[in-house]
Amino acid sequence: MLSKNLAKHIKSLQLKKYRKEEQKFLVEGAKSVLELLNTNFKIHAIISTEAFWQANKSKLQASKVEIIIAKEIELSTIGSLQNNDSALAVVEMQENTPLQLDNHELALALDDIRDPGNLGTIIRIADWYGIDKIICSENTTELYNPKVIIASMGSFTRVKLYYTDLSEYLSSIKTPIYGAFLEGEDIHRLKSAPQGGVIVLGNESNGIGQKVGSLVSKKISIPGFGRAESLNVAIATAVICDNFRRLSI
Amino acid sequence: MLSKNLAKHIKSLQLKKYRKEEQKFLVEGAKSVLELLNTNFKIHAIISTEAFWQANKSKLQASKVEIIIAKEIELSTIGSLQNNDSALAVVEMQENTPLQLDNHELALALDDIRDPGNLGTIIRIADWYGIDKIICSENTTELYNPKVIIASMGSFTRVKLYYTDLSEYLSSIKTPIYGAFLEGEDIHRLKSAPQGGVIVLGNESNGIGQKVGSLVSKKISIPGFGRAESLNVAIATAVICDNFRRLSI
Repeated sequence: MLSKNLAKHIKSLQLKKYRKEEQKFLVEGAKSVLELLNTNFKIHAIISTEAFWQANKSKLQASKVEIIIAKEIELSTIGSLQNNDSALAVVEMQENTPLQLDNHELALALDDIRDPGNLGTIIRIADWYGIDKIICSENTTELYNPKVIIASMGSFTRVKLYYTDLSEYLSSIKTPIYGAFLEGEDIHRLKSAPQGGVIVLGNESNGIGQKVGSLVSKKISIPGFGRAESLNVAIATAVICDNFRRLSI
Repeated sequence: MLSKNLAKHIKSLQLKKYRKEEQKFLVEGAKSVLELLNTNFKIHAIISTEAFWQANKSKLQASKVEIIIAKEIELSTIGSLQNNDSALAVVEMQENTPLQLDNHELALALDDIRDPGNLGTIIRIADWYGIDKIICSENTTELYNPKVIIASMGSFTRVKLYYTDLSEYLSSIKTPIYGAFLEGEDIHRLKSAPQGGVIVLGNESNGIGQKVGSLVSKKISIPGFGRAESLNVAIATAVICDNFRRLSI
């Protein structure tokens, strides 16, 4: 049974202040919770519906995590998913560990991405395109925001994020730095694929900042065929990654 | 000055029930409101901050629309944007008019897209890639939902949507019908571009339904390089459109 105290504790983790204090965050929904069981994230507890428990008993038992049975309505009340008919996990945050890139590796760098839905979607896109490292500026929205975790659809368990001074980080790396600019080279006309490098994505309103922009060694652009002035940043991320991977085969 | 009655009326238009009754909807934010002035949408009123009015006086006066000056806080209270420091327009819905496709035209078909953010983003993507017709199944989320309008970033003024029985519609057209399926042909390996045709996108949870799926004449797939199981539907739309336009040059 879900105690009032635990319900209150979980609800508090929807707020950054309490996540930071407690160093814990929430993972919601069947797919994400099940994926979590196969990772090295430390799970404090799983709040599960009776149905989810019955359907996944062996996996849940094998995880040795404390399971608390609750009603569907309770899950929606304590979590941030409007409807959650399966489970919610209370998980320990991982340390912000520096990421080293090797020369043949493609990575992403985010310059102040603010929308949690965008960040989560970008993590899922990275995972789809086999990119497992994302370097984030310090003002990029927090990975552990429930909206980020939900939008990443479990991909946050495979893609690593490192929050740091982005221009300092980019100054120190040796592989090419790509960034989308209006005057950049049309990605449909690129002849070859970057073997390794970093793709920089800019803030939703202001694009790539001046400081980070000055470090971009190769300007690229997504060709438009209609009248929209721009693309959403997650959309741009996907289109650039798709072209890079197509050219690298 | 914004009267209590008008504020109440505008607030009510956030709900589908009242939009349907009144046949009006809301357009919020500077970019969208300014783009609206150049279209044939009938605008009933614009609620504007003093600053937005001063900055766009000549355009707003030329439009001959009634302008009501309000405070920023009032705009956020009556509208659905958390922060709106510019303007909000009350606009008349347009009729659901059948769309005819010509043989050399690329269009989108949406099979029960439910998330307003996804629909708005898809409209923006269509506009970027020069696609101006979208055929929607009757269960696709409503175009006039404020979240759809906001996410489309003004592109709803250029891209036309037609809600209808999707399988009936697709049965009647002569150009190829493309749909993404796991076993489809890798879009990176397509040699030529479809000159005309319809790209079908499926529901967020269930993909393309059986009835519509049976009408797909050409199955395609987006190659994955990592471990994510799927892409968000708006992301998939962008990647497919980008590949089709690349191949059609």
